[in-house]
Amino acid sequence: MTPRSAPDRLLSVLAAFDHEHPALSLTDISRRAGLSLTTAHRLVGALTEWGALERDPDGVYHVGLRLWEVAALAPRGLALRQVALPYLEDLYEATHENVQLAVRDGGEVVYIEWLSGRSAVGVHIRVGARWPLHATGVGLALLAHDEPARQEEYCAGPLAAFTPYTITRPERLRRELAEVRRTGVAVSSRQVTDDALSVAAAVRGPGGAVVAAVSVVVPEADAQVPVLAPAVRIAARGISRALGWRPEEA
Amino acid sequence: MTPRSAPDRLLSVLAAFDHEHPALSLTDISRRAGLSLTTAHRLVGALTEWGALERDPDGVYHVGLRLWEVAALAPRGLALRQVALPYLEDLYEATHENVQLAVRDGGEVVYIEWLSGRSAVGVHIRVGARWPLHATGVGLALLAHDEPARQEEYCAGPLAAFTPYTITRPERLRRELAEVRRTGVAVSSRQVTDDALSVAAAVRGPGGAVVAAVSVVVPEADAQVPVLAPAVRIAARGISRALGWRPEEA
Repeated sequence: MTPRSAPDRLLSVLAAFDHEHPALSLTDISRRAGLSLTTAHRLVGALTEWGALERDPDGVYHVGLRLWEVAALAPRGLALRQVALPYLEDLYEATHENVQLAVRDGGEVVYIEWLSGRSAVGVHIRVGARWPLHATGVGLALLAHDEPARQEEYCAGPLAAFTPYTITRPERLRRELAEVRRTGVAVSSRQVTDDALSVAAAVRGPGGAVVAAVSVVVPEADAQVPVLAPAVRIAARGISRALGWRPEEA
Repeated sequence: MTPRSAPDRLLSVLAAFDHEHPALSLTDISRRAGLSLTTAHRLVGALTEWGALERDPDGVYHVGLRLWEVAALAPRGLALRQVALPYLEDLYEATHENVQLAVRDGGEVVYIEWLSGRSAVGVHIRVGARWPLHATGVGLALLAHDEPARQEEYCAGPLAAFTPYTITRPERLRRELAEVRRTGVAVSSRQVTDDALSVAAAVRGPGGAVVAAVSVVVPEADAQVPVLAPAVRIAARGISRALGWRPEEA
């Protein structure tokens, strides 16, 4: 085994937890983190004492409230979400559909917020979930405003397919992104699951750079894109303004 | 300086960030964490590489997206919030007032969710903020259902005052808690700021234990407690059921 630094070992304990493994025994943690039971015991003890982990009465560990409080300060996590939430609520009240806020991390989108609509379509995305850029509305909105070189690198692929409708050909993705820039909205139809459609728009920060994207996901069968598009664009502009974006200065 | 363990030093870097200090330079971190600049540099490097911290182009550090993703797994943080959010949205739609979800940590409440109403009163509570139990509606709802010994220990004080209306006498707090148990709702009037009133109810987990509290905060001047109380109780019961609570088994 490669020698590992002390910070690396401690962080590997935190990394042992994910959506499929939100609660772990000490043995699970030691195995998933690649640590001896003795080392895992010592590190878990320190993390528990600090509050980064919490221990159930039955000896199972999960992520603790103290870590959540620190993480709430992440500008691209809860902090962005706090600024955006009133506008997401407005979008939800106007549409009563699934409303999302997402940011980009490399070639993926990470969902920062998810308000569930009544007509929940077969999309099971959770806060903290990741999805490739080209398949989702928010991903297309983020990619369309990326700098040309990075955009082209992504377009060149490979582009994974999730349904028969997922964009997998580079030239089609390039056309789609040009359309997003022209219209100001991104539409992803049946690309993630074969019954859902999303309409998304980019959110800009103080200097005009795209920092996030907002979207609505509806059942594809009765999706009214011309009705949803203005609502999504207005919500995105509202969040951008709240973040300090000034279109008149652009 | 006391010798400190490796986990303790790494966690002290994370603890350097709080609501008043969401963005810090390396020098700030070293000073606030009580670490030498060399040690701070090494630990900040490891945390940044992992994604727990992110570095701005101007060299300022803030909490990173990766930490937020791990923290989203905290059952008493985002995970609880995800279950509760539809019911909080319903409460918000019914009242259009500030809606909160909070959990207990020792003698304090920590706000897990906060939906802002239109008639925002002079209450500046953020997600992740803390407040003493006896001053807030959610705190009274949580304290009222605590085990008698722990409850009595808290009631004995000292009880800090934030306005002239804050409950500071143990016997008055005990009466108030008995009233919460009798009615099923907690009312905190002008105890935190002198213009706000909150109505709260306890949220129960699968076994019936109180795990959180939900509340509405309104301007005290035109607060209609008899109208708000049933709405808050219904929202609290909805979240409790979604968490697996079964009143018929109690």
